[in-house]
This record gives sequence, structure tokens and C-alpha cells, in this order.
Amino acid sequence: MYGINKDPRSSDQSDDKHNEIAMIKDDKTALTRRKTALTRRRFIQTGFALSAGTAGSLAFNNAQAQFDSQGNLLVAPWTKKTGSDFLTPPYGVPSKYEKGVVRILPTPAAAFPTASRTPLQNLYGIITPNGLIFERHHAGVPDIDPDAHRLVIHGLVDRPLMLTMNDLVRFPSVSMIYFLECSGNGSAELKKRTGTTVQETHGLLSCCEWTGVRLSTVLAETGVKSSAKWLLAEGSDGAAMTRSIPMQKAMDDALLVYAQNGEMLRPEQGYPLRLFLPGYEGNTNIKWLRRLKLGTEPWQTREETSTYTDLGAGGKALQFTFEMGVKSVITQPSGGMRLKQAGFYEITGFAWTGAGKIRSVDVSIDGGKSWDQAALQEPVLNKSLTRFRYPWMWKGEPTVLLSRASDSSGAIQPTVDEVLKLRSANSVYHNNAIQPWLVTANGEVSNGR
Amino acid sequence: MYGINKDPRSSDQSDDKHNEIAMIKDDKTALTRRKTALTRRRFIQTGFALSAGTAGSLAFNNAQAQFDSQGNLLVAPWTKKTGSDFLTPPYGVPSKYEKGVVRILPTPAAAFPTASRTPLQNLYGIITPNGLIFERHHAGVPDIDPDAHRLVIHGLVDRPLMLTMNDLVRFPSVSMIYFLECSGNGSAELKKRTGTTVQETHGLLSCCEWTGVRLSTVLAETGVKSSAKWLLAEGSDGAAMTRSIPMQKAMDDALLVYAQNGEMLRPEQGYPLRLFLPGYEGNTNIKWLRRLKLGTEPWQTREETSTYTDLGAGGKALQFTFEMGVKSVITQPSGGMRLKQAGFYEITGFAWTGAGKIRSVDVSIDGGKSWDQAALQEPVLNKSLTRFRYPWMWKGEPTVLLSRASDSSGAIQPTVDEVLKLRSANSVYHNNAIQPWLVTANGEVSNGR
Repeated sequence: MYGINKDPRSSDQSDDKHNEIAMIKDDKTALTRRKTALTRRRFIQTGFALSAGTAGSLAFNNAQAQFDSQGNLLVAPWTKKTGSDFLTPPYGVPSKYEKGVVRILPTPAAAFPTASRTPLQNLYGIITPNGLIFERHHAGVPDIDPDAHRLVIHGLVDRPLMLTMNDLVRFPSVSMIYFLECSGNGSAELKKRTGTTVQETHGLLSCCEWTGVRLSTVLAETGVKSSAKWLLAEGSDGAAMTRSIPMQKAMDDALLVYAQNGEMLRPEQGYPLRLFLPGYEGNTNIKWLRRLKLGTEPWQTREETSTYTDLGAGGKALQFTFEMGVKSVITQPSGGMRLKQAGFYEITGFAWTGAGKIRSVDVSIDGGKSWDQAALQEPVLNKSLTRFRYPWMWKGEPTVLLSRASDSSGAIQPTVDEVLKLRSANSVYHNNAIQPWLVTANGEVSNGR
Repeated sequence: MYGINKDPRSSDQSDDKHNEIAMIKDDKTALTRRKTALTRRRFIQTGFALSAGTAGSLAFNNAQAQFDSQGNLLVAPWTKKTGSDFLTPPYGVPSKYEKGVVRILPTPAAAFPTASRTPLQNLYGIITPNGLIFERHHAGVPDIDPDAHRLVIHGLVDRPLMLTMNDLVRFPSVSMIYFLECSGNGSAELKKRTGTTVQETHGLLSCCEWTGVRLSTVLAETGVKSSAKWLLAEGSDGAAMTRSIPMQKAMDDALLVYAQNGEMLRPEQGYPLRLFLPGYEGNTNIKWLRRLKLGTEPWQTREETSTYTDLGAGGKALQFTFEMGVKSVITQPSGGMRLKQAGFYEITGFAWTGAGKIRSVDVSIDGGKSWDQAALQEPVLNKSLTRFRYPWMWKGEPTVLLSRASDSSGAIQPTVDEVLKLRSANSVYHNNAIQPWLVTANGEVSNGR
């Protein structure tokens, strides 16, 4: 949990606290000289300005090097001894200093929490580590013996089929990096400010490299009757989560996924098998998948009638609004963080769209009066999170930070007011509005909804 | 651990063992009919042939659906109850059924094991999950307080500098997917067969999305004197691992990395800071990085004189052979696995090169008599693992499986005999030879070195 965060231990404190900095004797004087000078030097005098395309100064916490009474360098205590041996079990875990980087349950605490959120403010790049991927389950996480698990495919097929996991992993496979977002992500924010941190407002979002079999490959085995227009997908969890999916999507880029980020699915992600529908709302990506039935019409299940529908401004509800809209959010700096001093900061965050690729992300550092294009980290992938970065020189003024994404379909991320022109404030899905972050003169960052 | 593996529980056994398969009544007869028919039907009759570009048959373990005495479907036990709640702590872990998928220490057991190996045979896609990334340390894993950690940059610079982690994360950052391979990976195999599984022969290999600061960006802050030609990188572990790096590499694509696969570095990967040199031998990617010194000549440290040099066939040793050669290996099927029956299998594995991008991977299913091009999973990235796939119809014959990669520099992966023309069999680094896997008539797969 680094840089602009809530960590009460400022670097200045730690500079005083820790005196075991390894240094080279002949640099002692030089470093003493630099201590104050560095806080004034401007990046524009250096290659940094060229690389970041902006002027700015970064106030280095450049502590005095520590030496003993004879002027010999002091070595860090961990350098003086042998470190820890291999872990038992040998599956790695994060550093104990990162114990605050975890998924959280909703706040205010729900009576029956059914989702945990990803700490977006602590993520780097586009891959979400498997231990931090958001969870949404409707009857808890089932404990499934993969050898006992079966996928049944029936209905309007030529050859109904039941497959074991051993069958499925023998099909030709593909690996794709795709985002996954709950359609309820940030929906409460449509009505009013509810979250403090980006984890609370946008944390039902993750991105993985998913590996599995194209559903079209498996359906080629069963054969598909021409009358089949919809697919029923059913989970084997206690909720038997069930959704109707258009056959067009099933035959396009739908996957039967058994692995994420290189290893088998985590239990809360559908172990041993889930449906994956790139760009579609999270709920349709049925976990613990046990059954696919082909039919002529949607089944009008609970999860596509009483829930997961979009309440329009006119009071009518829309069904089957699967695709996630173009969206972005600044994750650093974001709500709950504090800018410790004026100077240079890299504004960074995520952009994504169910429609294809992110085309551009604009950032505003003045509450929307002006916009400037952020840099997109390559490769920019289809239906994946895209990491954007924008160099910012903060002079200590109160302001509002915004990001606005556009995608390959030409869609542009709307403001919350634009969303509310089409959608009732009681609507609880598909809020892809621009997220404002307020910055006060003392550097406090908060939710500007 | 799926498909063609050592799991003693075959699917047929599990079909008999488990009788709680959820099925739809009106499919009972149909499924009974299909049970035997499916084992004979050929992919060439279906869309699969088009998608995989080959004929073949996949012997489905298509068990009889189970019904109660009234002919009603039986539901899986985990569907009849609420699943488990959120984890405490809320950091996710793999399924208990995957407990065999872990890093291993060298076999035969070393007196003082200093490396653990990645289970390549169980990986999917190109990302190695953080819990399975291979380890190599020379004095154990130090327990570093990130607030107390410092990076010192001195020597032939205009402005020596000491940076805290808070300073480093405020620099403009980049995220890149790169492979990391120990130069000793598979080196013992140069002399004779030593490993049974691909984890044993090639497991000092991983691939992550790394996030950090370009070293050139930080060196723009210190200024670099024109006389600087080499960089000394020093770790703060008990071994104070130290290597000399050409300034050209430092200014090209070298990174100061603090995050991997979305979260902060794991302790065994250098938490909180490591040097990352894309395509260079693992040992040069100094972990727990505490010091960079610029100079005119290499420092001739222990790790570039008595070790990490290449012993030539003529008895002379080469120093500073940093770049990892073009290499590939088939991970499925691989040593220790068993093909349960004739039929279709997807041959898959990794290809990588320190020189740039993988251009192509050829696979031989007949011991090298003929070669055919494998499919490369997009995106094919610079200095990253590349996943290749090749559809194979095994008719039950004994054979040898091989893969051979070529890269964007025009280099082609050599045979072990070709490596030994240049290198002594006592050489213990940079073995990038083609790996043969023997397949017997009963489907046993073993190391063909």
C-alpha cells in the first residue's frame, strides 16, 4: 500500500525512525548536500520532463545517510542474517506488510453480504491477482469435487452430451485477457454518494487471463438445431444461478473457462468450470456451470425478471441488457487517499468496455473545464481492462479529478446526469458514469459524486 | 491437475463412484444411446475440424446419467445446501483439490536447496500466478520493512540519490508482461537426463505482468556521466547479491519493479524492489535491490566470475552472457503424465526468447522426422512467454514429441548436440536445447533426453 495512501507512517517519520540505511562513505557529504536541493529541483531540467511530457517536481524524501561513530556505513538488519527458507506449503503468499490489501465486504455492512470487492486502489497494470478478484455469489461458494462435476448440454441439439472435466480439458483451448464486472458495480452511486474509496464504489471489477474451450467448439460436437435461438446456463451452486443467453453470443466469443491467471479457477470464481461471456454483465458468466440447454425463447428466470433488469426513467424496465458500457475510473489518487505535499503525481486508473477496445481516455485536473488525453498502456486488448496514466503537477490547489473513456464503437462514457436521463435513480445496474474525485487544499481526496 | 496427468482416479472410476449427476429426465434415453456412439464419432464430421484444422476423435467419458427409482433426476450434494461464506482473511486461495499444484524443491534433494520450481505442466495461458513463481535465493528470503528500505544511486552520476519506496512509486510507471528464467534452468540436462517432469527439467521459468519505473527515468534524475559504461546492482539480502550490467541495457528497457501481476512483489521475488532486465538471465534481475553504482568497468563480482559464466567446449569460460536464448518446451503432454487412451490431444507448451518476439514454433509428433507449425496464442509479446498449441491425433503408437522455436532475430532453438558443440557438458547455464518427450504404446510419457 504505497505512495498516496492512508498509511499513517509518513516517509519523513520513517526516515527518522529507521537508521540502518546502507550507504557508501564517500557519498555521505554529497547526499547531505542534496537533501534540501532535491526538494526544489524541477523535473523539467531533466530527462523526466521528456519522458513524462510535463514539467513538475517530485519532493524526494531524501534522508541523511546513517553512519556509525567511526563513519562506517550501517547495513540493514536483514542483510546481516540469512533470510527465511521455502514456504510450507510451497504456495506463495503476499508480504505481511501488504496484509491491508484484501477484498472487502460492502459498507455499510449488509445483513447478508453476497459480494466482496477488489482493492482497485492497490492494483498495478491490468491483471488482478487471483487472491483479490471480486466475488459475487447467491448461495455461498460450493465445494465441488471436480471428478464428480459434469456439464450437460441438451435441448435443441442433435446429440445431447454430458462431459467430465477430463473431457473438457482435452478440447482445443484458448487463453484470453478479459475484464469481468458485476452489472451492479457502483449502481448505488447512481442515486447518491455511498462509497468512500474506489474499492467501495468500483470494486466489483477484475481482469484475468482466462483459459478454456470455445463454447462454439463444444456445440459443434452436439450439433445445434436451426431453431435454437437462446441458451440456458445453469450453475450447480445452492442458488442454481440460471440465465438465458442469445445463441449469437454463445457462437461468437463465449468460453467454457476452467483456468484463470495460469491456474485452475478459484472456488469463488466457479471452480471447476464457468461460462465466460466477454463484455457481458458478470451475473451471466455462470459459475460452477453444470448445464446448458438450447431453446427458442429466453426462460424468463428470476435473475432476468425480478433482478438484473434496467429500470428506465419512464418506469419501464429493460431486460437482457447484457453488454457493459464504456467506463473508466481513476484509482490513484482516489477516495480516502491523501496527497502528502504539492508536487508531481501520476494519475492512473482503468478503462474498459463491453463493446470492444478502449480508443482513448481523457483526464481532467480542473473539474471538467479542460480535458487532456491520457497515455494507454500497450497492449490495448479487446474487452480487457486498459491501464491509463496521466502526469499531474499538483500545486496544492483544491480541484476535482475526472476520467472519461471512449471505445472502438464510438461510445463515450457519460456523466451521471446523462445516465439519469435514460435510467431511474432506483435502477441498480449498469452505472458507467464518470467518477469525480475531490481534492482539498490539504490533499484529502474524497468521492465527488 | 487435469486431463493427461498422474491422477490415479480415472474419469471412468469417478463415473462409477459418483451417482449424483444432475440430469434432465427426457434426455435419459438419448444419453444412454450416445454413450458408446460418441467414442467413435470423429471431429472431422464437425466444426471442430475447422477450428483445430485436424481430424481426430475425442473419447468422451460419457457416463450414464443417474436417476432415482421414480426416474427423477438426482442433484449434486453441493447444490442442495448453502456454500461456504467469505474467507477470513479475505485473500483468496486455490481449491483444496489443487493442493498438488505447488512449487517443488530440486530432485534429487540438494543438501542446501536454493531454488523452487514452477509446475509448468499445470499452467494455462502465459501468466504464472504469484503463488507459483519459481524462487532462487542465495541467502534465504529477507523480511524487509518497505518504509525502511532505500535505493541508493551513486558512482558516475551528477547527483547521487537515495530513494524511499514512496519516492519510487511516484515516478511515471509502466507495466510489461515479461518472462523470467534462471540461466541454470535445465542445465543439468546438458550432461544427462536428470528430471522426470517438465517442472523438474524446465521449472525455473515464470512469466508475469511487472510494474515499476524505467531505470532510465530515475537515472535522468541523477544524471549519468559520459564515462559511465557499467552499472553495479546490489541486493540487500544476506548474500548481498551483486552483478555488473552494461549501461546500454540500463538505459534501454531496464525497470525498477515493485509489483507483479497486479499486486506488490512477493517476498521471494524481491519485495519491495527488484531490478528487472527483460530477456536477461534471472540472476541479473537483482532482488531486494538496495544500491546501483555507475562505473567504467564491470566489478568482477563472485556471481560473474566463479559462477554464472559459460564453460565453452574448448575449456574457456565466457562471461556476461546475459541474454537467454530462444527456447520452447511442450508442457502437455510431458514427463510423468499418461495418455489414458488413443484419441485427440492438444499438444501445448511455452516458447520464449531474450532476443525479442517468438516468430514460430514447430512441433514434431514423430521424433523429428517431420515438423508442422503450431498455433501461437495472441498477443505474442516481446520477451514474454508465448503459448503454443498443436492438435494431435494419437493412434496409440510409441513416438517422440518435440518442439522447436524460432525468434524475431532469426535464431532457431538448437538440439542438445548442437549446444554441446559450443558448450562443455560441464557448463551449467544457458541450456536452450530442444526437449524430447517419449510416449510409449501404453501412453506413458517420459524424458527423452
